[in-house]
Amino acid sequence: MRIKLVVEYDGSDFSGWQLQPGLRTVQGEIEAAIKSVTGEDVRVTASGRTDTGVHALNQVVHFDTGKDLGAKFAGALNYYLAPDVRIKSAEVVSDDFHARFGATQKTYDYVMYEGNTDSALWRKRAARVQGSLDEVAMNEAASLFVGQHDFAGFMSSGSEVSTTVRTVLAASVVRKDGFVIFSVTADGFLYNMVRKMAAVLIEVGKGQTVDIPALLRREAATTKVAPPQGLYLREVTY
Amino acid sequence: MRIKLVVEYDGSDFSGWQLQPGLRTVQGEIEAAIKSVTGEDVRVTASGRTDTGVHALNQVVHFDTGKDLGAKFAGALNYYLAPDVRIKSAEVVSDDFHARFGATQKTYDYVMYEGNTDSALWRKRAARVQGSLDEVAMNEAASLFVGQHDFAGFMSSGSEVSTTVRTVLAASVVRKDGFVIFSVTADGFLYNMVRKMAAVLIEVGKGQTVDIPALLRREAATTKVAPPQGLYLREVTY
Repeated sequence: MRIKLVVEYDGSDFSGWQLQPGLRTVQGEIEAAIKSVTGEDVRVTASGRTDTGVHALNQVVHFDTGKDLGAKFAGALNYYLAPDVRIKSAEVVSDDFHARFGATQKTYDYVMYEGNTDSALWRKRAARVQGSLDEVAMNEAASLFVGQHDFAGFMSSGSEVSTTVRTVLAASVVRKDGFVIFSVTADGFLYNMVRKMAAVLIEVGKGQTVDIPALLRREAATTKVAPPQGLYLREVTY
Repeated sequence: MRIKLVVEYDGSDFSGWQLQPGLRTVQGEIEAAIKSVTGEDVRVTASGRTDTGVHALNQVVHFDTGKDLGAKFAGALNYYLAPDVRIKSAEVVSDDFHARFGATQKTYDYVMYEGNTDSALWRKRAARVQGSLDEVAMNEAASLFVGQHDFAGFMSSGSEVSTTVRTVLAASVVRKDGFVIFSVTADGFLYNMVRKMAAVLIEVGKGQTVDIPALLRREAATTKVAPPQGLYLREVTY
């Protein structure tokens, strides 16, 4: 039977999601925990991979098992997992549920703070920006991402995709409790898309002139990628 | 000359503030950094010690030095300090400034979240409470701490004080972004006072009947201490 897991992790001490020999990855840890619980060698599938240092509040994962544990998989896996990865829930789903291909929407948050030195408390949990940010200008700029666009200019190489067209359903920037937070929902994201959008918005926030429509039409190019520790996978919808 | 530092630290990997041979403490790290910068063996004085796992957003510290670095002490010390302790500012102050005895008010935040399992992201930064909390009841209960009271019943042993009377200037509980936060300002705090107040408020939040005036009159006693990772020293006023 197929099991769906909702997973939270602190990406700080992981070499990202994806299994890599000799490295500590979230996928590797979860597969090892399933082996400990069921004795089975299983492969788990996530809604998408996350890079080194990127966090997840609600990553969604599926796997197939012969063990009839259902919701009890959460507690059983947490028993074996390290405290920086937690199974928030487990449930039996139909065999046609697919964590990656079934995802219809994803939301990411990108969290920034302004400062001249890294924060002792936030250095692994948010991205520091030198100087001050104009969050109103950033919010206006973010709204230009909304809609169906070819985001090829907002993709790092290293992934194969059939199309670079994505639909952004919502994109906003707010200031909250000393942080500036960029939140974006789309039907899918290209590799490094949120971090490239964030890098552009940081330029806008610092008062630089950035022509986002031209970037979307690929009449201009951006190469900057904002650092990983500000990025949180918040929600996946099916 | 006397230097005042404002210090932020992530208490997770420290055995608290106070110097202890063979253990990593914030005081020990700062004194070692000053030695690296000035060549001097100095003793630093904080507004108060914090226990293992307790965090500080704006701890205040003073020390005396012959080196004329002034505000540049911040950058110089940060160069030698580990990233989980940061000097936010440094300034020359008059010789009668005293980080501990000159403090007129301190504010602490105690941050809680509700959950059946520890959060991967917040386990070292907030205290988990099983079940749900009634923050309105907690806020009403917190207001009973306001005023001048003998807080002897809210002190753990292990410190010598001339009086256990303290004046609480403000105490409130709010729900914010999935967290329940108890904030308290007083002219001074006894050892473990905030964590003992938090433990009582958690009982109130869970619907238990707690007679706070009776606890303050010492007609009843409380022994619980809420865990350290929820506690943040937010502000010290002089």
